[in-house]
Amino acid sequence: MRILEIIEKKRDGLALTAKEIQQFVQAYMAGEIPDYQAAALLMAIFIRGMNHEETVALTDALVHSGEILDFSASGRLVADKHSTGGVGDKTTLVLLPLAAAAGVTIAKMSGRGLGHTGGTIDKLAAIPGFRTNLTQEEFLAQVDELGVALTGQTPHLTPADGQLYALRDVTATVDSIPLIASSVMSKKIASGAQSIVLDVKMGSGAFMRDLEGARELARTMTAIGTALGRRTTAFITAMEQPLGRTVGNHLEVVEAFETLHGRGPADLTELVLTLAAEMLLAGSLASSHEEALAKLNTLLEDGSALEMMRRFIAAQGGDPAVVDEPARLGTPCYAREVRAVTSGYVTRLDARKVGQTAVLLGAGRERKDAEIDLLAGIKLHKKIGDYVEQGDLLAEIFTGTEEKLPAAAAEITAAYEFAAQKPAAKPLIIERFAADKL
Amino acid sequence: MRILEIIEKKRDGLALTAKEIQQFVQAYMAGEIPDYQAAALLMAIFIRGMNHEETVALTDALVHSGEILDFSASGRLVADKHSTGGVGDKTTLVLLPLAAAAGVTIAKMSGRGLGHTGGTIDKLAAIPGFRTNLTQEEFLAQVDELGVALTGQTPHLTPADGQLYALRDVTATVDSIPLIASSVMSKKIASGAQSIVLDVKMGSGAFMRDLEGARELARTMTAIGTALGRRTTAFITAMEQPLGRTVGNHLEVVEAFETLHGRGPADLTELVLTLAAEMLLAGSLASSHEEALAKLNTLLEDGSALEMMRRFIAAQGGDPAVVDEPARLGTPCYAREVRAVTSGYVTRLDARKVGQTAVLLGAGRERKDAEIDLLAGIKLHKKIGDYVEQGDLLAEIFTGTEEKLPAAAAEITAAYEFAAQKPAAKPLIIERFAADKL
Repeated sequence: MRILEIIEKKRDGLALTAKEIQQFVQAYMAGEIPDYQAAALLMAIFIRGMNHEETVALTDALVHSGEILDFSASGRLVADKHSTGGVGDKTTLVLLPLAAAAGVTIAKMSGRGLGHTGGTIDKLAAIPGFRTNLTQEEFLAQVDELGVALTGQTPHLTPADGQLYALRDVTATVDSIPLIASSVMSKKIASGAQSIVLDVKMGSGAFMRDLEGARELARTMTAIGTALGRRTTAFITAMEQPLGRTVGNHLEVVEAFETLHGRGPADLTELVLTLAAEMLLAGSLASSHEEALAKLNTLLEDGSALEMMRRFIAAQGGDPAVVDEPARLGTPCYAREVRAVTSGYVTRLDARKVGQTAVLLGAGRERKDAEIDLLAGIKLHKKIGDYVEQGDLLAEIFTGTEEKLPAAAAEITAAYEFAAQKPAAKPLIIERFAADKL
Repeated sequence: MRILEIIEKKRDGLALTAKEIQQFVQAYMAGEIPDYQAAALLMAIFIRGMNHEETVALTDALVHSGEILDFSASGRLVADKHSTGGVGDKTTLVLLPLAAAAGVTIAKMSGRGLGHTGGTIDKLAAIPGFRTNLTQEEFLAQVDELGVALTGQTPHLTPADGQLYALRDVTATVDSIPLIASSVMSKKIASGAQSIVLDVKMGSGAFMRDLEGARELARTMTAIGTALGRRTTAFITAMEQPLGRTVGNHLEVVEAFETLHGRGPADLTELVLTLAAEMLLAGSLASSHEEALAKLNTLLEDGSALEMMRRFIAAQGGDPAVVDEPARLGTPCYAREVRAVTSGYVTRLDARKVGQTAVLLGAGRERKDAEIDLLAGIKLHKKIGDYVEQGDLLAEIFTGTEEKLPAAAAEITAAYEFAAQKPAAKPLIIERFAADKL
């Protein structure tokens, strides 16, 4: 392989062969290609793009750069779910026990939050004792015994993705659809998933701001999964305003428990049911969407999902009693109410602004190594479409750092917009992509 | 400065400010920007391009990365000439003494050859004793005393160009017009030139194969020089076939002497006169092109140019007697004649193929550190438009490595094409670019 020829091809807008992509990834991992040549190639890929075959080949090369988890000995078909990241997105916390209660096997690797979007690992850290650093043996054993396990990402899986991501992060080559899609899908495939449900967020709080970009990402990831033999479905879902009514790790865990009790917000419940139903269909645990939904609703109503949550928390080392007594999770030090300065219908509740305010309050991090305040966050009492009288409670903000309250309150006030006319309701689930639509 | 923002701007096709470009070059030279970030930016520049202001700013930043030669104390206005590289291009060897004899001051820094194009430093190495490694003091003193001096490139001038070029060389970002133009012009400006004549070669033997690219390069370099206060003129000249009748260091030096004797080939003589006349006009040593040509022809005819060549060679440590007794330069070991296998008019004589054959014979190098055979080369007895009978002598090839002869002879045969019809004559000087045409 001559790396300069590969760089030249992509620089000039030509497609690379699967072999060239594989050789590049292998040689880069072997230290035979310096960072500056990889950086030049990544920038050429960023600007010129990659076609379907190239993106699949890159994903495959990333998968094969490290270990690949294999659950075939357990006889279980492992399912996985991925969200491209949003504000208030505690879907995984509800989806995992609900789908597991329905018989879906889930081996999930999650990440930490960065910037205005949260991460599942951070949210679970709000549960005392909950371990997200399972060894590979513990992870495999828990999947085998309980049918559901969650752990942080390990450097043994897709190490090439880790190394290339670190280089992309410092060369302005992160926001590329083929690079994002192959990175996400390589991690799902290497962690042993046979079926994958993707939640592509779209709107102010998401990486993808518009439908065109979200469609391209959804289509690309679905195509990769399908090409590599995984049953893959993607949903484009709304992320104009935060999901549910809470943003912040402790608050989101409590809201997840509420949802498992059947008292959750409508949008979160709808999203969880949609994704879980897809998992049931993928695992042949239901023969239609309607049957899957009926089954899932029963599991929510009869307490099975809640019971699975208790078992899941206990298996991971946490105290299962928090599910029924969320006060055990602690109380934030400082709180402030944010009240409406005008009357009218809420027409906008900027998810990105709310997410950034959560970071300001200490609930998230701007830098990878920053500490976070698990009890900090925002509780939203009004969302888009709600009618508000001047003086009504819009939101409550919580933090361990009192001096953050005034600025955060001003930000939350600014995140809301009002009008005399009630805005038209917009769907949460915008589009569905599956292999048959490709 | 935030380097990631600069990379993102260029990645997205936006123009950088002069300040951003200057800060990038300074920070890169200070070691504050790693090679991988510079490589990502270079690739973005390669693909997205640079506008006029950006290219001027980059040139200026390269100039100010090191020393700038200053001849103002000598009261001389220094002229310089640059060729983008061709086959058989010994123009500098004739131009320097001729223009100097006419009163033009020339302080020239030249490079070595690479690939199928030769370099002036290599050609001059064919003259025993000729030094091309003058110290800065020697260089300045010779310019002051004789009015003409030539030396190799020094790392003290435009070090940022040297460092960026080395990175471009290993990241497939060399062949970019703004990067080439700023690199060339920065070296000319830093070496003290007040007027610059550019010879942009076009055709099979040149970097620029077509008129469009040659025009863009000529226009860009002229615009940079003019913007930075240098009187700059560029000519696009033909490089479909080699210039003159020889290719190879020793052979080209002898042909240069012949031209100074007034017995040179028509194309070489025409090119030298055109470029030298421009230098005279730039230095106010002639008031019209016609007057300049008349003056130059007189200097060729009366032996003044030849005498300046002897003084130039002597000043640089060489033996001036070689000018009149070229046999002192030595004789190649092995020679072979290449004869026509058909009759007809020569319609094509591929400059690139001839240049590559010269490399094969040992006259050039494929790698920067390769040794070269100064006596190796090719003498062309027939050029485009000449009529040839089957069996006529087309060319002679010379080398120190006898086993190279058969392959080289076959290559030279293949470089020629013939037809029954005499081809239409094409001009050597194709276009002229000066500031007033911008």
